[in-house]
Amino acid sequence: MEGSAAQAPGKTVLRVVAISGSLRRASANTGLIRAAAEICRESIPGLEVEHVDISELPLLNTDLEGPGPGAFPAAVEAFRGKVRAADCFLFASPEYNYSISGPLKNALDWGSRPPNCWGDRAAAILSASGGSGGSRSQYHVRQVGVFLDLHFVNKPEVFTRAHQPPRKFDHDGNLVDPDTKDQVTKVLLALQALALRLQLGKLAVAAHSS
Amino acid sequence: MEGSAAQAPGKTVLRVVAISGSLRRASANTGLIRAAAEICRESIPGLEVEHVDISELPLLNTDLEGPGPGAFPAAVEAFRGKVRAADCFLFASPEYNYSISGPLKNALDWGSRPPNCWGDRAAAILSASGGSGGSRSQYHVRQVGVFLDLHFVNKPEVFTRAHQPPRKFDHDGNLVDPDTKDQVTKVLLALQALALRLQLGKLAVAAHSS
Amino acid sequence: MEGSAAQAPGKTVLRVVAISGSLRRASANTGLIRAAAEICRESIPGLEVEHVDISELPLLNTDLEGPGPGAFPAAVEAFRGKVRAADCFLFASPEYNYSISGPLKNALDWGSRPPNCWGDRAAAILSASGGSGGSRSQYHVRQVGVFLDLHFVNKPEVFTRAHQPPRKFDHDGNLVDPDTKDQVTKVLLALQALALRLQLGKLAVAAHSS
Amino acid sequence: MEGSAAQAPGKTVLRVVAISGSLRRASANTGLIRAAAEICRESIPGLEVEHVDISELPLLNTDLEGPGPGAFPAAVEAFRGKVRAADCFLFASPEYNYSISGPLKNALDWGSRPPNCWGDRAAAILSASGGSGGSRSQYHVRQVGVFLDLHFVNKPEVFTRAHQPPRKFDHDGNLVDPDTKDQVTKVLLALQALALRLQLGKLAVAAHSS
Repeated sequence: MEGSAAQAPGKTVLRVVAISGSLRRASANTGLIRAAAEICRESIPGLEVEHVDISELPLLNTDLEGPGPGAFPAAVEAFRGKVRAADCFLFASPEYNYSISGPLKNALDWGSRPPNCWGDRAAAILSASGGSGGSRSQYHVRQVGVFLDLHFVNKPEVFTRAHQPPRKFDHDGNLVDPDTKDQVTKVLLALQALALRLQLGKLAVAAHSS
Repeated sequence: MEGSAAQAPGKTVLRVVAISGSLRRASANTGLIRAAAEICRESIPGLEVEHVDISELPLLNTDLEGPGPGAFPAAVEAFRGKVRAADCFLFASPEYNYSISGPLKNALDWGSRPPNCWGDRAAAILSASGGSGGSRSQYHVRQVGVFLDLHFVNKPEVFTRAHQPPRKFDHDGNLVDPDTKDQVTKVLLALQALALRLQLGKLAVAAHSS
Repeated sequence: MEGSAAQAPGKTVLRVVAISGSLRRASANTGLIRAAAEICRESIPGLEVEHVDISELPLLNTDLEGPGPGAFPAAVEAFRGKVRAADCFLFASPEYNYSISGPLKNALDWGSRPPNCWGDRAAAILSASGGSGGSRSQYHVRQVGVFLDLHFVNKPEVFTRAHQPPRKFDHDGNLVDPDTKDQVTKVLLALQALALRLQLGKLAVAAHSS
Repeated sequence: MEGSAAQAPGKTVLRVVAISGSLRRASANTGLIRAAAEICRESIPGLEVEHVDISELPLLNTDLEGPGPGAFPAAVEAFRGKVRAADCFLFASPEYNYSISGPLKNALDWGSRPPNCWGDRAAAILSASGGSGGSRSQYHVRQVGVFLDLHFVNKPEVFTRAHQPPRKFDHDGNLVDPDTKDQVTKVLLALQALALRLQLGKLAVAAHSS
């Protein structure tokens, strides 16, 4: 996983797998991911965001798995491959009824089926939601992450109050608020720093021990 | 909702809508619901358990709703009708990655789309799981229930450690352990007591105020 | 506990024990309790708020308990007596580091030492805090309440963003914002309704069963 | 903080500040810390555990702070100094009423008063408790740690069911169960690995960026 970082630190480009918990076409959460991808293209050369769609995953049912290990339905297998290949993760987690959305939880669960595809990577969470801006969902994602073995960025936390002025998103869910863009940029830089720190730190500990 | 209780208290039969968060054919959680239904048939004349299947619900996507209020896909509409008609709820909540399963969260969310179908009813939770017996998932269900406006049974809590001796379930997920049956019975009696207390209490407060 | 309600429903006055999780002299959370007490005196004849101070409780240490049951230090004994005598509870729960304040948790714990003094009563939570208005602390209080056997008001939830305009509190922590007063009033009415419903419902179920 | 690691990696000894959430003389949680200290002395030369007592801290009340920054009561100042000087943290967190104990929360809060003394360090949690072994308290500690900016060991998690056979602790709270000792050893090694990884990784990222 940390190969590229080790071999060519000056050019390390980390692959960020980004997942939106909302399946609506004009979702503000998916809009946060599009904004993150654009910010990386324009100003963070060390990060590359790939938005991975989760709408085609079946509801989790382990009867759908084949008899051998790793025999998953095609859509699940494709999803798991992308998760495995990621250097780190960006979740856009809407708050549905004070917790994680069903579709996001379903994706997290499919990725965790043995062998767990999420393990030992850095992750960050963004949310756009009414009310609290999605904070209740983020702490549930973090609890899930203990079992998945994710290491989350602690600060900053981004809770976008989607329905409060100033206007944050246009009718297609595109982020149009400069302050929120600035927050997303800060989270991405924090994610990059934590992901590199964990990757390079792992190498350094191995060298230190040998 | 509390009509039958008011008119003929001696014969009140409460309809319990029961939902399993696991879609596996041989799920132990679904087995807990079958056991609950059987216990009610045999020894709790005031409760009638109906297991409502959630496997056909689409992943939540509000683009699937029609333009007017209440225009839901057929499977969703049918599910919401059953939720609305319930006197109280019984959730069999497996623990997936330290939280609610995706399918259960998805069902809770569809039922909450405006107008919310869950409100102001009593609910109880059962879990069968490895490790902690499912406790982590239950507190997330309870937090979701704050927004749904559910009133949960506090005691007893049933956390069935499915993989610890003595054997709890057979290969088809049928509950075979007498101690666990006893715990399920106690939860059902507590659910009945709380549901009746809330229904009769509401009538009494209305009478008291008028 | 429900004696007065049963005997003279027209004049039922419920005793609300109110506890502030902040010990600061000019605490906004304690200000919410003073406001609640005043609102009850002025406009809710069925509720009487008593603010119970928790600043003199020692840090919980069961070595401080005597050999027999119920042998507590004097300050603890006095506190427990007030909790036992309450009809329902009002918590003003600040958010310290995304959870319950130490002093409030300490008071909840002393009241729970066997025999538990909190059980089977209605409760409501208010918060004044920066950021999210205290929501993270409230869900932790609710989880604690499962073990204490409290029944919480679900709606409305009051999260007062103390540092956002318009000004909510004066320099002494007195609530000066009419909109927040209105929210506190609504919570108090919801607490009264739930407490009465549980008390009268319990009597009705007992009558129904006999 | 990472000075010693940078200068002499071969001899890095990390100072672990260990805090027990139970103040009982014969506490099993404090026993877990004594066991951890002994394990480090005997077999983990890179870790040194110091048990920091929290029983003399006053209940948090910011009125006790002086007018200038950093003017804390003497016991608080001493505690904060030890927290600041730590390389990483070990919490023995009992579960009181499904959450963190009051004394532990109180200590976490005093250490977080500006300027926050906990930030950007690795941490691990142990628990001894009845029932679930303390898991509910640990997820609350983890949520607190988001604000404190702690990085927690994800695996293994140690939930010692103190009252289940085989006997885990003697009458003085000393850990006597070899399996639990083995789990504590594994947590300590994971804490050491994460703390070193974060320290060395930070240096490597700085070098990488310059």
